Amino acid sequence: MSGNTFGTIFRVTTFGESHGPGLGGIVDGCPAGIKLDEAIIQKALDRRKPGQGYGATSRKEDDKVSLLSGVFQGKTTGTPIGFFVANTNQRSGDYSRLKDIYRPGHGDYTYDAKYGFRDYRGGGRSSGRETVARVAAGAIAQQVLARQSIRVMAYTVELGGIPARETILDQIETRPFFAADPDMVAAWEERIDTVRKQGDTLGGIVEIRVQGVPAGLGEPVFDKLDACLAQGVMSVGAVKGVSVGAGFEAARMLGSENNDPLSPEGFLSNHAGGILAGISSGQDILVRAAIKPIPSIARKQRTIDRTNQEQTICIGGRHDICAIPRVVPVLKAMVALTLTDMLLRHRAGA
Amino acid sequence: MSGNTFGTIFRVTTFGESHGPGLGGIVDGCPAGIKLDEAIIQKALDRRKPGQGYGATSRKEDDKVSLLSGVFQGKTTGTPIGFFVANTNQRSGDYSRLKDIYRPGHGDYTYDAKYGFRDYRGGGRSSGRETVARVAAGAIAQQVLARQSIRVMAYTVELGGIPARETILDQIETRPFFAADPDMVAAWEERIDTVRKQGDTLGGIVEIRVQGVPAGLGEPVFDKLDACLAQGVMSVGAVKGVSVGAGFEAARMLGSENNDPLSPEGFLSNHAGGILAGISSGQDILVRAAIKPIPSIARKQRTIDRTNQEQTICIGGRHDICAIPRVVPVLKAMVALTLTDMLLRHRAGA
Amino acid sequence: MSGNTFGTIFRVTTFGESHGPGLGGIVDGCPAGIKLDEAIIQKALDRRKPGQGYGATSRKEDDKVSLLSGVFQGKTTGTPIGFFVANTNQRSGDYSRLKDIYRPGHGDYTYDAKYGFRDYRGGGRSSGRETVARVAAGAIAQQVLARQSIRVMAYTVELGGIPARETILDQIETRPFFAADPDMVAAWEERIDTVRKQGDTLGGIVEIRVQGVPAGLGEPVFDKLDACLAQGVMSVGAVKGVSVGAGFEAARMLGSENNDPLSPEGFLSNHAGGILAGISSGQDILVRAAIKPIPSIARKQRTIDRTNQEQTICIGGRHDICAIPRVVPVLKAMVALTLTDMLLRHRAGA
Amino acid sequence: MSGNTFGTIFRVTTFGESHGPGLGGIVDGCPAGIKLDEAIIQKALDRRKPGQGYGATSRKEDDKVSLLSGVFQGKTTGTPIGFFVANTNQRSGDYSRLKDIYRPGHGDYTYDAKYGFRDYRGGGRSSGRETVARVAAGAIAQQVLARQSIRVMAYTVELGGIPARETILDQIETRPFFAADPDMVAAWEERIDTVRKQGDTLGGIVEIRVQGVPAGLGEPVFDKLDACLAQGVMSVGAVKGVSVGAGFEAARMLGSENNDPLSPEGFLSNHAGGILAGISSGQDILVRAAIKPIPSIARKQRTIDRTNQEQTICIGGRHDICAIPRVVPVLKAMVALTLTDMLLRHRAGA
Repeated sequence: MSGNTFGTIFRVTTFGESHGPGLGGIVDGCPAGIKLDEAIIQKALDRRKPGQGYGATSRKEDDKVSLLSGVFQGKTTGTPIGFFVANTNQRSGDYSRLKDIYRPGHGDYTYDAKYGFRDYRGGGRSSGRETVARVAAGAIAQQVLARQSIRVMAYTVELGGIPARETILDQIETRPFFAADPDMVAAWEERIDTVRKQGDTLGGIVEIRVQGVPAGLGEPVFDKLDACLAQGVMSVGAVKGVSVGAGFEAARMLGSENNDPLSPEGFLSNHAGGILAGISSGQDILVRAAIKPIPSIARKQRTIDRTNQEQTICIGGRHDICAIPRVVPVLKAMVALTLTDMLLRHRAGA
Repeated sequence: MSGNTFGTIFRVTTFGESHGPGLGGIVDGCPAGIKLDEAIIQKALDRRKPGQGYGATSRKEDDKVSLLSGVFQGKTTGTPIGFFVANTNQRSGDYSRLKDIYRPGHGDYTYDAKYGFRDYRGGGRSSGRETVARVAAGAIAQQVLARQSIRVMAYTVELGGIPARETILDQIETRPFFAADPDMVAAWEERIDTVRKQGDTLGGIVEIRVQGVPAGLGEPVFDKLDACLAQGVMSVGAVKGVSVGAGFEAARMLGSENNDPLSPEGFLSNHAGGILAGISSGQDILVRAAIKPIPSIARKQRTIDRTNQEQTICIGGRHDICAIPRVVPVLKAMVALTLTDMLLRHRAGA
Repeated sequence: MSGNTFGTIFRVTTFGESHGPGLGGIVDGCPAGIKLDEAIIQKALDRRKPGQGYGATSRKEDDKVSLLSGVFQGKTTGTPIGFFVANTNQRSGDYSRLKDIYRPGHGDYTYDAKYGFRDYRGGGRSSGRETVARVAAGAIAQQVLARQSIRVMAYTVELGGIPARETILDQIETRPFFAADPDMVAAWEERIDTVRKQGDTLGGIVEIRVQGVPAGLGEPVFDKLDACLAQGVMSVGAVKGVSVGAGFEAARMLGSENNDPLSPEGFLSNHAGGILAGISSGQDILVRAAIKPIPSIARKQRTIDRTNQEQTICIGGRHDICAIPRVVPVLKAMVALTLTDMLLRHRAGA
Repeated sequence: MSGNTFGTIFRVTTFGESHGPGLGGIVDGCPAGIKLDEAIIQKALDRRKPGQGYGATSRKEDDKVSLLSGVFQGKTTGTPIGFFVANTNQRSGDYSRLKDIYRPGHGDYTYDAKYGFRDYRGGGRSSGRETVARVAAGAIAQQVLARQSIRVMAYTVELGGIPARETILDQIETRPFFAADPDMVAAWEERIDTVRKQGDTLGGIVEIRVQGVPAGLGEPVFDKLDACLAQGVMSVGAVKGVSVGAGFEAARMLGSENNDPLSPEGFLSNHAGGILAGISSGQDILVRAAIKPIPSIARKQRTIDRTNQEQTICIGGRHDICAIPRVVPVLKAMVALTLTDMLLRHRAGA
């Protein structure tokens, strides 16, 4: 039973491979009367495109979105919203030699194990290009959230082992790397340069913050807000860990340190990350995602082929050094999709 | 839209509050012909009961499970399996004073915000007792997994900031704290004693390991195996973070360090935690959960009541110091439920 | 993938077999603050019990419901509502001879084909007793509908081939057979007596009418209101056909006859049965269900056993002659469950 | 909560309006390795296009399908299959005068009631053109069924009140009207001519037959095979009734007449329509659908506008007289989709 649908009431289903005709999806369950046009989605897509600053490939992907349904006279009609982004810049020749060999850290081996064969061109469905559809859908979700004055931000708090020292929200999304801390940009660029020369790659940590969330969102006991955020965030290819509020640090705190006291003016701290017992408390939602280094490295690696013969592989070509910053808009999209679904789910039960 | 169902094909729905008649659930989608009786479930329930070693309350909960349907002549029939555990040891008098006050770190405030009122006795649905139904359902899942020689283990790798130095799987589930490292037990007991005297509480980190998982489980792109594990694990009350394989450490590694090379004899490392591109690789699945300290502390805390007036609260009574070890069987159950669903989902698509 | 859950937002999952410990279910997604207690459910259950008028068995089933969760101080809390009805009057000895033989018209053959073996006592899960849980859940749904002044009625419009001549709604649910037309009761009783003496059984047609439904319920294009009603009604064991409004007669009408003209005072007819393009129009919802004759007849029938050997069977014992009137409250329950789900679904999208 | 997804494991989600850019959908859950290309889908689409014989409009719709994903080297890959059919022949000018008026028998009134406004061009999402996506998805389903030698047929058994006298399956799908009985074609053509001259429209009855279904498909108690077929069939716009096997006639039969006896060679009759207790018995599945007359008639009708003022309307233009034969491939598609889902669901539980 395939899993290409996310959400229950605000529900996005996506399709598309790296080297097929294109990528797209359907958003079903978007309320009627939401302002929407292609420009709104295009703006979000433009943020994840390659060639955006350091660590990125020089590939040019012109991801032009078309809205195929569900919008009339500039507003959503309540019917399903189809959208499509054609693949325009794929070179199949780059990939044909990967038909029979398994790249370490990629899904080549597991896709073959699962489906018996795979579209080997550029990773097929397991390519990072799949996230184009997530970002498009996330842009629609953000229109719904905006109507409730809910705002999702995502930014980098650590890159290549170098943490940001502070988080300055103002203008955070126009900064290189969507960096939390403008003072770290130079150090991160340098780190990337060094690693690039080694033919290697880097990871980092991204934080997603949601402001303006009303108390009451989340559906215990299995679809708690944090549980659904965890699924959404972890479903992004490069993510190996997700935490809420104090996260793994909470495991080392005392109860008296970790608890957030309440006062008539509100909570006095936010170790909980805005979620108590799986339900939003009205504080900012704070989620972190651990991003692994990109597995395509320009160094020789041991691997096997489809006949289980030993091989070595060295992946050249136009690859990113780090999934950051491209993964940042994707994580923002996943959190926006989750929150929108939770907003409508809460409304359904009210 | 409530969220008391977990899984899609192997699907458990639970009900019950801390101080109502009891807790129970329905497992729908269990294949026919699986060996099952009450003793199998009871054994799993006995593992999570209080009074089990250090850090636990002295409450006695006799959680006796009844199977209500779906089993005939010692085997599942393919029809839904109902089960029930009566609440027998609840004292409502303990809790009535909490009717109008919000305990920091608990769901009192958010449940009121969401539903307008709440069953305030013992936390109601947000009580840890809710996990009784998870453990019962997880025991059924493990019967399905056992038939495929898939085995789930869960154990403690850090407590109160003190990490285990190694993991010795043999007899790990009969050790105090389900400790990964028998040499840490004494230090952890001492840490708990100290904190108990301070009226405070502790957290820790639990690892869940699944052996015998075939390659191919997981449903990209949203219901990846790691994404669904993340939801299941994060849905447990005390969990604030979840990671797979190298987890947050992966964010600090180079691609050449993090990638797991393949050889004809199999993978040469397991930083991926047994999951590539959201699909099991055939290696052990490795998941970690960060457990926050229990919020009920015997120290004075600032809070508010339902009328938003400032209050102080000091929670005495029979409370655990640490959710570990009681949360360990619960996490094991959630991973077993996830894996079982993924096993059947994969079969559906084959 | 089992199918023991009905509804998407107001969602009921049931369990239980004829001769197991009992029957029950979980209603998840019921809004908080709805008045509910056991007496409300009991009253609905009492309506479907046997020994109710003509055509019924003399079995006595004391179906006493217990609420297990989700209600506090007489109101729903928004958490899942568990309920249970113990089986108290089953005699397994009656059925053991049916272990290896397939009763014509029953699910014996198909359950064996599907699951490999079956609980053969009294039909197991395929017994009409399964509907106890539907009626209990339907009573909860009706509490939600009542708050919106939506009222579901169900009554018999044809029995044993003898149609009612008119429908008199006043006091319709206290009449024998829940007869639409009080003048038909005597003729229907006589028909049943005749058929009983022949060792045979009868069917009929039930109409369900919903008053007070606001315009706008239904979720095109697949979950149209009529489509979901059709699923709910057809899921009841004895039903072989379902129609909306003019139903099969519409197939013989001209467009000019079948169309319902609109006027400023409302629609001028209701051939559509209150549903246009899958969405409620504000008129009464009108649904009909064709009920087949009960397959357990006291006449000799040809059949086979599990080893595919020819057998004859004559089913004696305490069996109803007609599923009517017992199926009437069940159909009412299914329509109430469907409408409640549609009400909440519409709210979610608003 | 919108309802544009059909099925649970083999799952189709559709989008598109009559006068938007086009119609399409995503099939998620199609097993890998199924032979598929655009020609296979195109062939099915060509069967539902207008201008196909009697009773049809002279509009020309060139519904050219594009496959957007999920197929590689002529076979499905197990990833979601996106498809799209552009609208090429729409004239918006035809419809703008219908912006503020409600056509009797159409969804104009109810769509406004539900969503607050609507895409009024050609019925928008409630147009019969929506079924293009169903037929495309159904063609994919039929490829899955074909691999199991399951074959779905659909044909007309009554038109304008004139029933077929017999059903001759051979070449049934190439006959005018997909007529069950070749001898009725002339009478049906004549009936349509008469009604057309009156400016009126007609309905009929379609039967769907599935051959080669193994015993065991269907998921009691709510997702019984007949229940899911009923939803699928009733979700088609023109359908007002659905029945299985003897259908409404079963309500008038005795148990001894309606029961299908079993013999070592198989069932001796098929009043059940191939389904017992919601599970396929291995006999042919037999379903009937009542098709209402098309509501767009060229006669003056009373209605209202958006301001609730009385109006009269006479709908000219290029409209069909009867939904038959165009609805026949759509019903076939819905039954194929249902059966495919049930096939995979059964496999999941095995």
